[in-house]
Amino acid sequence: IDSLTVRSVTGGEGMNVEVRRKMTENGMASRGKVLTIDTMNPTVKKVEYAVRGPIVQRAVQLEKELREGAKKPFAEVIKANIGDAHAMGQQPITFFRQVLALCSYPELLNDSTFPEDAKSRARRILQSCGGSSIGAYSASQGIDCVRQDVARYIEQRDGGIPCDPDNIYLTTGASDGIVTMLKLLVCGEGKSRTGVMISIPQYPLYSAALAELGAVQINYYLNEEKCWSLDISELQRALDEARRHCNPRALCIINPGNPTGQVQSRQCIEDVIRFAAKERLLLMADEVYQDNVYADGCKFHSFKKVLFEMGPEFSNNVELASFHSTSKCYMGECGFRGGYMEIINMDAEVKAQLTKLVSVRLCPPVPGQALMDLVVNCPQPGEPSYNNFMKERTATLGVLAEKAKLTEQILNTVPGISCNPVQGAMYSFPRITIPEKAIREAKEKGQAPDMLYCMKLLEETGICLVPGSGFGQKEGTYHFRMTILPATDKLKILLSKVKEFHQKFTQQYS
Amino acid sequence: IDSLTVRSVTGGEGMNVEVRRKMTENGMASRGKVLTIDTMNPTVKKVEYAVRGPIVQRAVQLEKELREGAKKPFAEVIKANIGDAHAMGQQPITFFRQVLALCSYPELLNDSTFPEDAKSRARRILQSCGGSSIGAYSASQGIDCVRQDVARYIEQRDGGIPCDPDNIYLTTGASDGIVTMLKLLVCGEGKSRTGVMISIPQYPLYSAALAELGAVQINYYLNEEKCWSLDISELQRALDEARRHCNPRALCIINPGNPTGQVQSRQCIEDVIRFAAKERLLLMADEVYQDNVYADGCKFHSFKKVLFEMGPEFSNNVELASFHSTSKCYMGECGFRGGYMEIINMDAEVKAQLTKLVSVRLCPPVPGQALMDLVVNCPQPGEPSYNNFMKERTATLGVLAEKAKLTEQILNTVPGISCNPVQGAMYSFPRITIPEKAIREAKEKGQAPDMLYCMKLLEETGICLVPGSGFGQKEGTYHFRMTILPATDKLKILLSKVKEFHQKFTQQYS
Repeated sequence: IDSLTVRSVTGGEGMNVEVRRKMTENGMASRGKVLTIDTMNPTVKKVEYAVRGPIVQRAVQLEKELREGAKKPFAEVIKANIGDAHAMGQQPITFFRQVLALCSYPELLNDSTFPEDAKSRARRILQSCGGSSIGAYSASQGIDCVRQDVARYIEQRDGGIPCDPDNIYLTTGASDGIVTMLKLLVCGEGKSRTGVMISIPQYPLYSAALAELGAVQINYYLNEEKCWSLDISELQRALDEARRHCNPRALCIINPGNPTGQVQSRQCIEDVIRFAAKERLLLMADEVYQDNVYADGCKFHSFKKVLFEMGPEFSNNVELASFHSTSKCYMGECGFRGGYMEIINMDAEVKAQLTKLVSVRLCPPVPGQALMDLVVNCPQPGEPSYNNFMKERTATLGVLAEKAKLTEQILNTVPGISCNPVQGAMYSFPRITIPEKAIREAKEKGQAPDMLYCMKLLEETGICLVPGSGFGQKEGTYHFRMTILPATDKLKILLSKVKEFHQKFTQQYS
Repeated sequence: IDSLTVRSVTGGEGMNVEVRRKMTENGMASRGKVLTIDTMNPTVKKVEYAVRGPIVQRAVQLEKELREGAKKPFAEVIKANIGDAHAMGQQPITFFRQVLALCSYPELLNDSTFPEDAKSRARRILQSCGGSSIGAYSASQGIDCVRQDVARYIEQRDGGIPCDPDNIYLTTGASDGIVTMLKLLVCGEGKSRTGVMISIPQYPLYSAALAELGAVQINYYLNEEKCWSLDISELQRALDEARRHCNPRALCIINPGNPTGQVQSRQCIEDVIRFAAKERLLLMADEVYQDNVYADGCKFHSFKKVLFEMGPEFSNNVELASFHSTSKCYMGECGFRGGYMEIINMDAEVKAQLTKLVSVRLCPPVPGQALMDLVVNCPQPGEPSYNNFMKERTATLGVLAEKAKLTEQILNTVPGISCNPVQGAMYSFPRITIPEKAIREAKEKGQAPDMLYCMKLLEETGICLVPGSGFGQKEGTYHFRMTILPATDKLKILLSKVKEFHQKFTQQYS
């Protein structure tokens, strides 16, 4: 009632007598609120973020009801909506956590149970912190030695192509870096407004950030029939259309793909770079799943490496920002909000503006920076923690590969569900057939049909997935995104419940 | 040359033959950069942030030169530019760091050398993390149990006035909360554009955020003659003038003051609240220095407490957001980027939008949330860590109080410097007399006179302060901001060097 009342006051129109009477009773007639839905920032209202949307809110509520003893057709809620590995039981890498404990409480450097390589990493990080404390602010661009380690890591990863630590910016998760880069890019009004090309399906951070910044979102569709691959002709189509109403300036790529799990071929990356060069687009490469490649014959190729292998005509010219994070891969340390971006061929004056912009928020969280350092400077052969580190890393990636295959296989046994191979990342994005009757029902409710589907799935089975409409999909097609993160036994239960539900749902609406 | 070239290409005008020739040599003629200073986001260019501005960049460079063996008239750079306690040698609170180590590496829960209360705090935090790991994402609003602890802390602080955990949002430092609130508020164009009142001098996060959001900054001046107090008549003047060209919607207060170190009286807070109610302004209370009160007769009064003591006419109506942080007070844990905001009387629909908005960035860093929890749920009498915790806390605050007095006293012995009492926070903001000749020289260089002063001070003594012009000051007055954080012996050296420099500078320009 309260918000309704206030809305009416502000809106000024159509306030009925009943509302007015209630307002007077509440002593509210004299003033509405300063900040109401009608007087708040309109761009914020346009923001949508499905990964934590209504389905997830309902899931949290159901969990609460279960805890309070409510009777449900399921004993627990299984959340496969978000790439949150630790929440699904994945164990942290011991070495990383040892070093973080040492950095947090340096007294432990005297504890003989900690391995020497963990101690030396901690000492190195602490020495480059103000007052030798991770409680000090770092430089806004990130701790010097961490940026150096990141640069060396990138050089090794990319077969020796040089990386300047000055081009590395540590970030608060990859999201922070992506939003910052988009923020730098946005300008102009009307037909000159900055447009940014994003894949559909996409990770909704992109659409949310573009909405908030008031930029124009330019959709290019991935080719579901060809395992979510990227066709240059589709890029061209999307760009040509967009040029009629905005100024396209950047092209975002997620590789390995989120939510679609594809891994781009080297050839495709080369074609994309050539396209960006020809069309004068800044490239943004979201490469946070760079270690998550499972399918035979697939390999991660960084945009930077391919760019430099294409020769100076490209490597001296194409502007590229690439993003990495501590949240995914084998570490899955989402809570630390660690990440970095590397910028290539950025104009020097713009770079100075970027450095200034990040300084306003002081610095990325230092524990997250420390963790990022460990990821890029992990135990080496001969160091005491090496064997255990490799064992843990390999096991985690092995299990993920297994679950990627399992997910694809089981989903493809269900009539009405078809699932591309999960080549990489942490998600499957299967296509689902929704009966006409269900589509009509959803439309009557003003709901996306796959939202209706996922909401019913949640209520009946406790399984929390995200509807494809939250990521974007071709008109008339329906999907859901499901992480492959639940423990194998739980994943099997989940998949068989989805199968059962889908059959029931199809029957019910036939 | 590179950026100059590109600028010319984009600007299109006045490109001289020499530049064109160089461009062709570099093979650049065919394409400029996508992102240049002329085609980047214009609001970002307007952002300024003095606390990490040119003075600090020069200080970092000087440190590097010293390390490389350069000869300077000083042996070290002393940074008194930023409220970074640990960097200046303040020690972290043992209990906090023990719990953080336990949370990072839960194996240590089996270590008998850790006190039981540290372990129980760690267990409680871990239990409310997904998968019992601080590496999992938390809810976007923050971990439930942390928000509950924050609410209990606020209730105790404010003498029992109720606090709903649902009104608590954990943030990435206070800066994040402040920017988020401002973002919600900004709308309208031209004369309807949102205006936000900020004190002058101010902490430049406010001006930077308003510039980036394209909001109108409304300056109200603090009264230096009355110890930087806030006069309602000045608020009224500023507001009335602003109403002619924008739509003022919020009033920001920093108490205890940054950069000015004053502590507001209860009466003044009441007057401000009455003003906000009368003029329909949302209040934003930056209270990150709430434990940093040193002067006799001064006490911290939270805006929330005063608001509720003024009765339902105010407490049911005035919209208030207040901000706290782990970075200041006695803990000084800046690097963890912990913080919270409490929102009061926020419209329910707007609150839903706020929750959605913060969900896009997933969650604040979990180690920072854990630390915030410890601050609001610190060791209690009877617990094993209580005595040591209180000893450390009291010692740190005692030393800060001493240094606050010392700074004021010594600065006031210098002819041409006058310094208000440092009643609270971590800064002095003394007024300095700059000779006419120096003012003319600065103006010829296109520099603020106090920038010239601070730059010379840095070059000659290695002391890094921030010019008053970075915070705003009355036309024709000059100041610098200096933290009171250096260790006492170093602070004494610093102050005597400032004294000596000021005398020399005055002589030189007379």
